[in-house]
Amino acid sequence: MQSVFVDGVGMTKFGKDPRPLTEIFSQAAQEALAASKEQEVDALYIGVMNPEEFTGDSNIASQIADALGLTGIPAIRIETASSAGAAALQAAFQAIASGYYRRVLVLGGEKMTHLSTSATTRILAEVIDKQERQCGATMPALAAMIAEKYRQKFRLSQSRLENMLCSVALKNHLNGSRNPLAQFQKAITREAYFASKLVATPLRLYDCSPITDGGAAVVLTGEKTDVRLSGIGQGTGPLSLRERDIFTSFPATRIAAARAYQMAETSPQSIDFAEIHDAFTPFEIITTEDLGFFPPGKGGDAVIEGKTAFDGPLPINPSGGLKARGHPVGASGLAQVVEVAKRLRGEGHSKRHFKRGLTQSTGGLGTNNFVTILERTDSPMIKNPGKPVFPAPVPTSPKKATPPGSISDEGEIETFTIVYVTPDGFLPPLALALIRERNGRLLMAQGEDNEHLKIGREVYLRRIDDFYLFTVKSHLQKVQESLKKLLRHRVAWASKEDKSSDTKL
Amino acid sequence: MQSVFVDGVGMTKFGKDPRPLTEIFSQAAQEALAASKEQEVDALYIGVMNPEEFTGDSNIASQIADALGLTGIPAIRIETASSAGAAALQAAFQAIASGYYRRVLVLGGEKMTHLSTSATTRILAEVIDKQERQCGATMPALAAMIAEKYRQKFRLSQSRLENMLCSVALKNHLNGSRNPLAQFQKAITREAYFASKLVATPLRLYDCSPITDGGAAVVLTGEKTDVRLSGIGQGTGPLSLRERDIFTSFPATRIAAARAYQMAETSPQSIDFAEIHDAFTPFEIITTEDLGFFPPGKGGDAVIEGKTAFDGPLPINPSGGLKARGHPVGASGLAQVVEVAKRLRGEGHSKRHFKRGLTQSTGGLGTNNFVTILERTDSPMIKNPGKPVFPAPVPTSPKKATPPGSISDEGEIETFTIVYVTPDGFLPPLALALIRERNGRLLMAQGEDNEHLKIGREVYLRRIDDFYLFTVKSHLQKVQESLKKLLRHRVAWASKEDKSSDTKL
Repeated sequence: MQSVFVDGVGMTKFGKDPRPLTEIFSQAAQEALAASKEQEVDALYIGVMNPEEFTGDSNIASQIADALGLTGIPAIRIETASSAGAAALQAAFQAIASGYYRRVLVLGGEKMTHLSTSATTRILAEVIDKQERQCGATMPALAAMIAEKYRQKFRLSQSRLENMLCSVALKNHLNGSRNPLAQFQKAITREAYFASKLVATPLRLYDCSPITDGGAAVVLTGEKTDVRLSGIGQGTGPLSLRERDIFTSFPATRIAAARAYQMAETSPQSIDFAEIHDAFTPFEIITTEDLGFFPPGKGGDAVIEGKTAFDGPLPINPSGGLKARGHPVGASGLAQVVEVAKRLRGEGHSKRHFKRGLTQSTGGLGTNNFVTILERTDSPMIKNPGKPVFPAPVPTSPKKATPPGSISDEGEIETFTIVYVTPDGFLPPLALALIRERNGRLLMAQGEDNEHLKIGREVYLRRIDDFYLFTVKSHLQKVQESLKKLLRHRVAWASKEDKSSDTKL
Repeated sequence: MQSVFVDGVGMTKFGKDPRPLTEIFSQAAQEALAASKEQEVDALYIGVMNPEEFTGDSNIASQIADALGLTGIPAIRIETASSAGAAALQAAFQAIASGYYRRVLVLGGEKMTHLSTSATTRILAEVIDKQERQCGATMPALAAMIAEKYRQKFRLSQSRLENMLCSVALKNHLNGSRNPLAQFQKAITREAYFASKLVATPLRLYDCSPITDGGAAVVLTGEKTDVRLSGIGQGTGPLSLRERDIFTSFPATRIAAARAYQMAETSPQSIDFAEIHDAFTPFEIITTEDLGFFPPGKGGDAVIEGKTAFDGPLPINPSGGLKARGHPVGASGLAQVVEVAKRLRGEGHSKRHFKRGLTQSTGGLGTNNFVTILERTDSPMIKNPGKPVFPAPVPTSPKKATPPGSISDEGEIETFTIVYVTPDGFLPPLALALIRERNGRLLMAQGEDNEHLKIGREVYLRRIDDFYLFTVKSHLQKVQESLKKLLRHRVAWASKEDKSSDTKL
């Protein structure tokens, strides 16, 4: 396979950008071309999530080729939800590694801020499962349910989890304050964090990445530069929460990481810093575990202890991450590569000399993820000997058959959240829970009230059309049920005794 | 570069399909996998144009991986408007040619028939330029304007052009009658053709491909099979009609073809048959010229003479083409590859032994086009010696600077159509013309009436907001103008004479 290198990179100032999407792309492209050894490219590979609905733009690849004055050259658009920028990079990598193209201009971008928050939330929510959306689930709501499950699995107190999430937000906003291209360039305080409104328990406004316009550009080339793209991998995971075996890890990241580490002949221990997909603060914690940086359940402690701080041993999101740099969905996966390339070249972190950086991008709710490893070509290639030390990916399991039997009208809470920022048509506060019904199926359901929610609590389920409602069983109801059961048991036992006495006769 | 081969292929019966998009994809995928040497694949590359708006599906790559029970494996979506299926094939080709993947399942599909024709037409029209759309332009309207220009350029009578277009429609519907997977499996008569309603002059209903649901699947592999993907190329062209230098050829096809022929070390003369993008009958004629099968202006004669018939020397669209097989936009570019692979394997054309087939797919109004060459691996590799005999691609010209000066209120008709099937909000019949105003700019404009339209006619232009209206100058107006000009000339001459007599004084 032909080696692939990074030439010029560029990105716009993220935030609210009044220009049309094609102009945002053009600025990033022109910067990357201007910073390159050669200005000619053979093709354009463009990552963008949903210009059809955000800006009414279709046929975007041809539009951008036109806007750049490059009409004629091949141009394709690539999409994997919010990791589209990383997907474009991977496809371009393959195009150059094959020798088919020599130089490709990779672009990632999105324009989102011109719409209302509810319109944007609706478009973003289309990446999640339909049945879960019908219940009122949004991306933050599902991320919140994952955070709650994480808390329960690793036996964290409410305040310990909040402390972890707050630490991610504080770190990334502080990092953003050093990044002139970040959407938010101001550090925030613990007080501001805890004063920010709840979006979906336990997530607050400062746990969620913002709505952003922006573009990023990277020129990939088959000719040697100072930065090599040494590893790249992709994995997928189940779209819906209710078809998952595991909620506190994204198998898609583990699959992608395994491939990237193997290809780069390296391991998590050799990575100097990383830009990862912190669309929600709990995702940063989970992802540092999936990437093998910290053991499961320890990612949060690492943040609190400063291990992932700007000057810590393993800086995570030194650019500010999606949290503070902003999250134009199609741009983020490629902006990470821009940030890592710049830092490897000595920009932004001038006191430290980094050899190897990693990027991780997440599509949807961890359903389509990428990992990329970049390294300086002037550093000696010290490769890891022997067995890989990163966590093995969860093996691909074919879709499970639906368990037999009808859906029971009882079950228990697998995880839950109370949504305060609801989609149009749903009144806050809205209780949502993933319920494991008696026959083993997982269902997304709306709470009839918001009281007594806790993982493991027993609930009654009620179906209305395609829609489930749940009520937590009260103590009294449970006592009544136990009595009924006991009674049934006695009756059955008595009738059995009758029968056996019959046979004796 | 690693050679790439075609393993199993599959496609659904095109037409109205009541199933969800993921199920349509699944059927095609399962057929292709079942027909393959191995059932395992490393990744999914999916071409689909606009599931966001057609079916409200976002994050489609993850959805399809899930639906196929392949959760875990990398899956990306690729889009280049109506050539998305071909774009997915090309990206997958590069992924295998690089050695990054060994086997890729390529999918193309679209679900469109569940919407109203006006909703579908609106979504399809988003691939064309915004200003042209605002005037009421649709894909058929622009294709009609290209046909009219073709007629004028090659000095064809109205009836000669109609005869050519009719011949394409008759041939492709006859071919469709032999294809059990085609949407339309009935031959049509000349009478039926000429009785069909006008969509946009000179195009009738039978000149336009239908609205279709369908999916296609191709397994590409790095291991030798009986069919090799020996050449592939892509090119782009200007999005808007008004930024084109040439209207009777698609430079994007020529660029793509040049690359594909060069890579396959072959030429148009060595192609045995082809599946090409006949979304509109004039596109088939133009494309056979762009591919170098016939000289410019001769593609229509070739159809009339039967050269491209099912049993002719160079069968074009033996499957029925988009015209009769149907046109699920994201599927078409890949369905062509399915058809060519089957025919090379002896299906569908059992009396002839084909060695080499070509596919050509068009995105938008010829803005993002692909050419692919497939050949049997058991045929001796007779390559073309010496210089290529295909037409050289039009060189890529950077976007021209806007001509100086304001927009004149006069100009002449570059090409035109009268639209009978108009988009919502426009009343038929609607005259549309591309006007070359006096300073050299091209503008799309609506006619104030539908009379006296002819290429070259002089018009008055009137601007209303972002919108232009034109009126053809009457004979009387032209006489009056000539008189005015003469008068101005005389006055100028007289005043010059005065001045010169002044200086003499």
